[in-house]
Amino acid sequence: MSILVVGSIALDTVETPHGKVKDALGGSALYFSAVASLFNPVNMVGVVGADFNLQSIDFLKKRSVNLDGLEQMGGETFRWGGRYHEDINLRDTLFTELNVFQDFRPTIPEHYQNDAFIFLANIDPELQLEVLAQLKKPRLVVLDTMNFWISGKPEALNRLISKIDVLIVNNEEIQQLTGKANIFAGAEELLQRGPQAIVIKKGEHGAVLNDPNGYFLAPAFPVSRVVDPTGAGDSFAGGFLGYLSTCPEINHEQLRKAVVYGSVAASFTVEDFSLNRLERLSKSDIDERVENYRNMICF
Amino acid sequence: MSILVVGSIALDTVETPHGKVKDALGGSALYFSAVASLFNPVNMVGVVGADFNLQSIDFLKKRSVNLDGLEQMGGETFRWGGRYHEDINLRDTLFTELNVFQDFRPTIPEHYQNDAFIFLANIDPELQLEVLAQLKKPRLVVLDTMNFWISGKPEALNRLISKIDVLIVNNEEIQQLTGKANIFAGAEELLQRGPQAIVIKKGEHGAVLNDPNGYFLAPAFPVSRVVDPTGAGDSFAGGFLGYLSTCPEINHEQLRKAVVYGSVAASFTVEDFSLNRLERLSKSDIDERVENYRNMICF
Repeated sequence: MSILVVGSIALDTVETPHGKVKDALGGSALYFSAVASLFNPVNMVGVVGADFNLQSIDFLKKRSVNLDGLEQMGGETFRWGGRYHEDINLRDTLFTELNVFQDFRPTIPEHYQNDAFIFLANIDPELQLEVLAQLKKPRLVVLDTMNFWISGKPEALNRLISKIDVLIVNNEEIQQLTGKANIFAGAEELLQRGPQAIVIKKGEHGAVLNDPNGYFLAPAFPVSRVVDPTGAGDSFAGGFLGYLSTCPEINHEQLRKAVVYGSVAASFTVEDFSLNRLERLSKSDIDERVENYRNMICF
Repeated sequence: MSILVVGSIALDTVETPHGKVKDALGGSALYFSAVASLFNPVNMVGVVGADFNLQSIDFLKKRSVNLDGLEQMGGETFRWGGRYHEDINLRDTLFTELNVFQDFRPTIPEHYQNDAFIFLANIDPELQLEVLAQLKKPRLVVLDTMNFWISGKPEALNRLISKIDVLIVNNEEIQQLTGKANIFAGAEELLQRGPQAIVIKKGEHGAVLNDPNGYFLAPAFPVSRVVDPTGAGDSFAGGFLGYLSTCPEINHEQLRKAVVYGSVAASFTVEDFSLNRLERLSKSDIDERVENYRNMICF
């Protein structure tokens, strides 16, 4: 079952207490694909500039990531720069250069249009709606967004939320979306707006799943040396949707396990800069950590 | 097996987005006792002023809390005032009036000196050392402290940490104690200083247990209406030590379960102001929520 991702491809310049990288691979589509492709083939839709070295993502092709939907345009690739504090949960954005990403209008290649498992990574919700309209038989649509769109395009975003299956948000986003300071109260409200399930990402504090069957509380896998948190959320989505794409049926139990796969995927990502850890990650690494994780939450 | 607690008894004036109480019951010894006494008899050592209405804690006596160690002095009871923000994790201390608590020198009554399960609630570590010296056969000593003592009396505190069994800290305290921003790295270091186990309280994000057998990750029980977080930490300690006092043997599995009992106890406390929810709490309420909780973390 192919997985489709529509999102950003970026060159990130990141500084953390553990070092610095310049123009390193980044962007939601790359983080997502690097993980999800360990479960099933991934079709990627995105845009890069003329300066982007396609060989740098050869490892994705080896993992059955199809790049027919990757457009290379004249101009420069989307660039993001950020600096993380000693408290690694805090970061400053130093610059955002949209470049070719500014005019990104995702076109879904015909041989992607039957994909079943869809990740709408964080882009303009109007574009995300256009993507949805091009799909013929999506089975599970997972949506990510950000504060910029919640305040800037609330109407398009709400329309979109009513059409998707799983909404992934972080604690600030859920507060902004619902006006509720309490994330559980916020999750209950969001469930009324259409999605089958809400997943709240809390970074180092783990994740919470809420669906009509109740809550699943997933602490983050302990990482004693967080080198670079960039991409953790998109890696989470990659593990989450990657796992679900292997399930004959999707029910509450599968959603729980998907959250665990997402959490574990994210825990690898943060161990190194950029996609470095994911590049040398295997499915069995993930499976092994899932079992370690299970042992840390039983009682 | 009797449980001993040495801590504060306070009259709290608290304002939260859900309302306000003035001169309401508070203090570590009361929160702890209200919970721990649902598991086993509790002996309490503390001090109140002439203005304290002893009848207000009659419900504790009915739960086998022995008050022989509660000294009533001339003068006023310790008072604390605080205001919680819309984001209930943030609070401002409005006033702290130590009053009779200022000169508190805990004396352990002779019939308490054989108690096995000891909670040294947050007071001056030099006094906590004096308490320890008065005990004849402690089986498990649990220590709480705060930022004020970590910076103000580091030497006494470190001596104390080398003598106790379980150290309970929150995320800021562990960073302050160890100089490490990462709580897992901090917990590893603290384990080297003597305790058998470290418990990190993360408020709404749950708790983490670390001992030589590894980690146990406990998300917080979801509470969709947090009325007043005051006392959650001491209630946690009450559930934690209360549960352990019922165990013939204390091993890693029991410590895990104790963390769950602590988390669940705290989840009740925050549902109402002061000790209001705890006053009408039963052991079976706790047991039932522990089972609900188990269902929220399995996968």
